[in-house]
Amino acid sequence: MPKIVDHDERRLSIVHATWRLIAAKGFRATTMREIAKASGVANGGLFPYFRNKEELIGATFEHVFTATNDRFAAVRADLVGLPALRELMLQIFPLDEERILEARIVIPFWEYAANEPELRALHERTMQSWHTEFTAHLDDAKRLGEIRPDVDVARAADQLMAMLNGVQVVAVLSPEGASPKRLTAMLDDYFALLR
Amino acid sequence: MPKIVDHDERRLSIVHATWRLIAAKGFRATTMREIAKASGVANGGLFPYFRNKEELIGATFEHVFTATNDRFAAVRADLVGLPALRELMLQIFPLDEERILEARIVIPFWEYAANEPELRALHERTMQSWHTEFTAHLDDAKRLGEIRPDVDVARAADQLMAMLNGVQVVAVLSPEGASPKRLTAMLDDYFALLR
Repeated sequence: MPKIVDHDERRLSIVHATWRLIAAKGFRATTMREIAKASGVANGGLFPYFRNKEELIGATFEHVFTATNDRFAAVRADLVGLPALRELMLQIFPLDEERILEARIVIPFWEYAANEPELRALHERTMQSWHTEFTAHLDDAKRLGEIRPDVDVARAADQLMAMLNGVQVVAVLSPEGASPKRLTAMLDDYFALLR
Repeated sequence: MPKIVDHDERRLSIVHATWRLIAAKGFRATTMREIAKASGVANGGLFPYFRNKEELIGATFEHVFTATNDRFAAVRADLVGLPALRELMLQIFPLDEERILEARIVIPFWEYAANEPELRALHERTMQSWHTEFTAHLDDAKRLGEIRPDVDVARAADQLMAMLNGVQVVAVLSPEGASPKRLTAMLDDYFALLR
C-alpha cells in the first residue's frame, strides 16, 4: 500500500480516537501529549501526522463535517426539496450528545480559523458546499410548490447558514435553552415562514 | 473616591485601550505582557485587574455587549416594533470594521466560555437580555399588525438569536460572502417572511 494512504489513514484513526476527548475536555485545555497518549502513540509520535494544534483542529473539524454528511446520506433515502433540507439541517443541529460534542469542536475551530488562512479556507470550502446544497434543496422546494414563489432562495440559504452556525453556540453555551424540542421547533417554524 | 470605583474604572480603561489590538491580533496570540504594554502598565501590573486571560476576555466581551447597546440607544429615537428590532439587529450585525473587530472578540469569548462556568453565565445573562428585548419588539410588532398574527414570537426570537450568533462567524471566517449589503438583505428578507 502506498505510504500516502497509510499516512492519511493514520491521521484519520488518530482523529477518530481522540475527538470526543478533545470535545469533552476543551480543545485549548487538551495537550498534544494527552492526544498522543489517547491515540496510543509515543510522545513526539504525533508529529509526523499533526505538527501542531492547528493541524489537529483542522482535521478534527473535517471529521465532524464528514460525519454529518454521512449521517444525512444514511437517512436521506429519496427525500427531495424541503423534507431533504429539513433532514440535512437536523443532522447539523446539535440535537443529541454526539452532535453537542461536535459543536464543542466547531467553536474552537472557528477561533483558530479566524487567524489561520488554511483553516479559514477549509471553513469556506465546507460551508460553501452546504450553502450550495441548501440552495439546490430550496430550488427543488420552489419548483415543487413547497415554498412561497417570492422566497429569495439565496437569501434563505444565507439565513439557514447563519442559523446553523448560531445554534452551535446556543447548544454549547446555553444548553438549558437548547433542548432538542426547542431547536427543532425553531427550525420548523422557520420552514413554516417559507411556506 | 472609594477604591472599588477606581478599580472598576481602571479595568474598563484597560479594556478600552486594548480590545482593538486583541481583536486584530487574535485573543490567543495576544500575551498578557502585550496587553500590559498597550495599556501602559508595568509587567505584572495587570494582575490586580485581570488575573488571567479568562477574566480579560470576559470583561472585553462585556464591553462589546455594552457598546452595541449604547449604539442602539443612540439611534433608536422613538422607533418601536419591527423598525426598533431591525435597528437593534443592525447594531449587532458585523456591518463595519468596528463591528467585525467586535466579532473577533466574540468568537474567542465563546471558546473560553464553553469551558468556564462564570463566562458561560455572563454569556447567558447577555443573550437572555437580548432575547427578552427581541420578544418585546416582536410583541409590539404583532400588536401593531406589522407581522403575521400566526408568528410564534418566542420561536422568531430564537431564530434571530441563532442568526445574530451565526453572522459573527460568517463575517470573520467568510468575509467575501459577508458584505454589509448581503447581510442586511438577509435580515430584511427574514423580516419580509414575518410580515
